Amino acid sequence: MSNILSSLKSPDMINNLSENEKVELCTELRKRIIETVSETGGHLASNLGVIELTVALLSAFDPYKDSIIFDVGHQVYAYKILTGRNEKFSTLRTYGGISGFPSREESDCDPFTTGHSSTSISSALGISVANTIRNDDAYTVAVIGDGSLTGGLAFEGLNNAGRLKKNFIVILNDNEMAISKNVGSLATYLGYFRTRPGYIKFKESIESTMEKIPLVGKFSASVIRGIKNGIKEDIYSKNIFTDLGFAYYGPFDGHDVEKLSRTLKNAKEIDKPILIHVRTVKGKGFEYAEENPNIFHGVGRFDINSGEVKKAGDNFSAVFGRELTRLAFGNKNVCAVTAAMCEGTGLTDFQKKHSDRFFDVGIAEEHAVTFSAGLARKGMVPFFAVYSTFLQRAYDNLIHDIALQNLKAVICVDRAGVVGEDGRTHHGMFDAAYLKSIPTIAIYSPTSFDELKTAMSRALNEETSLTAIRYPRGSELYKPEDFETSAKDFDVYGEGDTAIITYGRIFSNCAIASGELKEENIKVKVIKLNKIYPIPSGAVTEALNCKKLLFVEEGSKNGGIAESFALKLIEEGYSGKMKITAAEKGFVPHGNMQQLLKELKMDKDSIKETLKSL
Amino acid sequence: MSNILSSLKSPDMINNLSENEKVELCTELRKRIIETVSETGGHLASNLGVIELTVALLSAFDPYKDSIIFDVGHQVYAYKILTGRNEKFSTLRTYGGISGFPSREESDCDPFTTGHSSTSISSALGISVANTIRNDDAYTVAVIGDGSLTGGLAFEGLNNAGRLKKNFIVILNDNEMAISKNVGSLATYLGYFRTRPGYIKFKESIESTMEKIPLVGKFSASVIRGIKNGIKEDIYSKNIFTDLGFAYYGPFDGHDVEKLSRTLKNAKEIDKPILIHVRTVKGKGFEYAEENPNIFHGVGRFDINSGEVKKAGDNFSAVFGRELTRLAFGNKNVCAVTAAMCEGTGLTDFQKKHSDRFFDVGIAEEHAVTFSAGLARKGMVPFFAVYSTFLQRAYDNLIHDIALQNLKAVICVDRAGVVGEDGRTHHGMFDAAYLKSIPTIAIYSPTSFDELKTAMSRALNEETSLTAIRYPRGSELYKPEDFETSAKDFDVYGEGDTAIITYGRIFSNCAIASGELKEENIKVKVIKLNKIYPIPSGAVTEALNCKKLLFVEEGSKNGGIAESFALKLIEEGYSGKMKITAAEKGFVPHGNMQQLLKELKMDKDSIKETLKSL
Repeated sequence: MSNILSSLKSPDMINNLSENEKVELCTELRKRIIETVSETGGHLASNLGVIELTVALLSAFDPYKDSIIFDVGHQVYAYKILTGRNEKFSTLRTYGGISGFPSREESDCDPFTTGHSSTSISSALGISVANTIRNDDAYTVAVIGDGSLTGGLAFEGLNNAGRLKKNFIVILNDNEMAISKNVGSLATYLGYFRTRPGYIKFKESIESTMEKIPLVGKFSASVIRGIKNGIKEDIYSKNIFTDLGFAYYGPFDGHDVEKLSRTLKNAKEIDKPILIHVRTVKGKGFEYAEENPNIFHGVGRFDINSGEVKKAGDNFSAVFGRELTRLAFGNKNVCAVTAAMCEGTGLTDFQKKHSDRFFDVGIAEEHAVTFSAGLARKGMVPFFAVYSTFLQRAYDNLIHDIALQNLKAVICVDRAGVVGEDGRTHHGMFDAAYLKSIPTIAIYSPTSFDELKTAMSRALNEETSLTAIRYPRGSELYKPEDFETSAKDFDVYGEGDTAIITYGRIFSNCAIASGELKEENIKVKVIKLNKIYPIPSGAVTEALNCKKLLFVEEGSKNGGIAESFALKLIEEGYSGKMKITAAEKGFVPHGNMQQLLKELKMDKDSIKETLKSL
Repeated sequence: MSNILSSLKSPDMINNLSENEKVELCTELRKRIIETVSETGGHLASNLGVIELTVALLSAFDPYKDSIIFDVGHQVYAYKILTGRNEKFSTLRTYGGISGFPSREESDCDPFTTGHSSTSISSALGISVANTIRNDDAYTVAVIGDGSLTGGLAFEGLNNAGRLKKNFIVILNDNEMAISKNVGSLATYLGYFRTRPGYIKFKESIESTMEKIPLVGKFSASVIRGIKNGIKEDIYSKNIFTDLGFAYYGPFDGHDVEKLSRTLKNAKEIDKPILIHVRTVKGKGFEYAEENPNIFHGVGRFDINSGEVKKAGDNFSAVFGRELTRLAFGNKNVCAVTAAMCEGTGLTDFQKKHSDRFFDVGIAEEHAVTFSAGLARKGMVPFFAVYSTFLQRAYDNLIHDIALQNLKAVICVDRAGVVGEDGRTHHGMFDAAYLKSIPTIAIYSPTSFDELKTAMSRALNEETSLTAIRYPRGSELYKPEDFETSAKDFDVYGEGDTAIITYGRIFSNCAIASGELKEENIKVKVIKLNKIYPIPSGAVTEALNCKKLLFVEEGSKNGGIAESFALKLIEEGYSGKMKITAAEKGFVPHGNMQQLLKELKMDKDSIKETLKSL
């Protein structure tokens, strides 16, 4: 098993493989990835789609010298395996193991640590320009999916790249998908010119010319130019990419490893920015993933033989989706907006039941917010469901297009706090910090499914301006039997003149800590914020009566809610001490949620220890 | 004088004017705007460019029913005058007077309060979709310049609008400018198809057809479709806008008011989203502005006869530009990046002296940051100069593309704090709040020109990660004779066991207040932060020794530096009291800087009063 893969000591050996060996290598890579992800979970479909492309890239480029940037980065497993991380690959996404995304810390072959969409062209452009200034003739390659292309940043990058003269290659990995099916006019457009006879003719003539050219040696750019001039009357020689200054080639079959390798080598000789359009199949080579690329986009553990995904229990996203669907029956103004995360945010059923009020705008968080502002301006109540880390994209839109207009919109901030295995690009550590700076905002942070529903109901029926509801990835944690929420702005659990102040999921660990300390005769009450901003004044009064305070916050310490609380206390002349447990460094590594909470000292034992040290 | 203008009691009367009267109305509007802006300052060139377009829009649409959204909003003077704000127009941009931008609070004809670029298509789309849901047949019109079109958000909007069926019109106001000359491939592209014979032919055939159609009555969409089909072989019937699902018409002469009126009325009959390409001349009708649209984009008071702009003194932007130009001679890695603000941020000379290291990326702040990350990744030291309010666009890029990579880049945050007459969309009230949440960041806030230079030098030579330097619009304020900065992280001015803690420009008012109180035998020292984040521990120690503290912050109270300082104090067990003077509500109206600082209680008298009340 893995004969070719294990024989590859370094990526420069790939180019010496025969065509058959490359095909075999792809098979081995596919097997390795499927087997590993079935155990660790991870991004499967996107990775299976780019295996041939990755082998071709490493046939044509030197990952130590050239910069290959995978947009989003959820398609780098083959690349990782082939650039020195084959052995460690079984530790994928585990605490201390290989990251599921490109990582500068992990390898010199990863130019950037990435995880967010649509950045690749811009960062690649910066690298390419710097190389030019430094007289470095290295190549820069951005590999971007058609989904990522719907993000405005990608367009900004394309618009700026056209002025470049050389050594800059964008590969459009076109699988007709973002995470769900790709949306928007651009998607329609790609579908259109993907299949036009004119294009195919163009493509074939290019390809047949390319086939005649020896593998080694310079590819004559003038040949391509000649062909291009020959069909200059063809309307399809002009497209959105050529309009933006790129030489366009394609579409090519993304699973023909040999032809792709040759194409990429040839592309190196073209003296202007190039866009190579490659068609791939998400999930390629694993039938269950090909059939259900959504499910196998980001997936938990699964059974290889049956394709059955190991079921997790109910989760906040699902509860949110069900509740919003229900609310929309009762209120005809309720709309749902998502940025290519229909499944992830639990909106699949809403889409079916209320299709006229469901809007998937593609990977375009800025647009999602400003579009929601427009909806709100005419009396709709938009609920924009978005992961905390991606909402960072729309900070200005929240300020300028919603808050400044005194409009009411509800931002449902999914994956707030630690998200686990996706790691540092995906944790939602900053939302409380950046959201609280936005004038007129109200922020809720439910602990349980029931509290999420309460917050949604309050947002719909009580709040009159921008409202955020932040909730974690996955399930509820422990619910103390002797606790019931008041459904008001804050609750107090237990008693004592020491208090923990906290909010969200992490209340569970605080409650356990408090309960266990009680058995040791140490009395600690928990002040639990339900509405975390503006800070409920009653919660401040509760805290003022305590001698010692511990603020436990599953988020960044810098700019967090603890700071706002501290200011309230000091304005009131509080003379006790407060200690903070929060994410001191802001960035948190990958691993399972429990491991990460422990690293952050937010597990019940760490909380107990901290309390004892007060 | 102003016969037609003063005879118009409401905008619906415009449509009844004869062609000659409309032309005369434009002349009157032009005069009114030039005269007013020569006294108040404001956006001149952009407003002069759209006078005919505005009259045409109000001939075709009902501003009370339809939604007309001007992108950015720095071209709404004629619109304001014609929609009930003629009399008040002389109060333009003054405290309590008419805003220089669209304002919901000012008029029902302004659908959104705007000021930032590239939002119009997205917000208009939201309005249009909501209208459809509510069975409202109102039209929605987004008027967007070719400069704003370089912002990714505009592309996201276009990409999503293609699915709409009706009543949605985008007007591309193409003047070949952003604020400076427009850049990027799209600009080249527009220039290209603007002048192609094929296009002109297309345009003429459409126009001549349109001319034959009676002004009143339905325009037959099928006529246009017929023409379109007739030239379907013409490569130019397909362009970037048709690719994105729009029906494209143009380019039209943006100063032919009658033909534009007819075109817009005809456009209402087309049953799909339409893009109408209009060519305008920035500064039209005022020779000095036509010749120097940059200078007359946002301009202070000027002499109408000579075109001479009343000179202000030296300012932070100019000092920044000179210093960066100097530093770049000594360090070959220094690069300057701007998002269409070369003049505004003081980089004109840098562009001339170091053209290979100067990058104007267009109105594309996200790209600017991610591109800077790429530059930094290969050893450059990018200085991205950007207005505080526009940097809000790039919050995620700062986190994901710079901080997470441990890259060094310098963000030069111009217009931090109150900016004056541009008002609530333009004040830099949030930068301290959102920047401090970014891991690894260092933030400087110089008070004087010399301190700005010091901060730049420290950023270049001492700092190793993401660094922000925030400085205000305009000039230095008062410098106490008995104060010299240490060039370290903080300074202490005066003595006493009461202290003001402050930073940036507002130190001047605090120092005056302290000096005047000393004469009344009230001793107040001023702890002035130079590096405002991370909070200098020495400054905290200074504060711990004081009984009473007043934190004066020219920025948002929510999330501001005062909160971080409060947390430090409470972690150290501070038992005194601290009061905060900051922008409580976040948004601040327009007016001159002194008036606004007084409203915020940051003038020296208010500071003295607050101190006495402690």
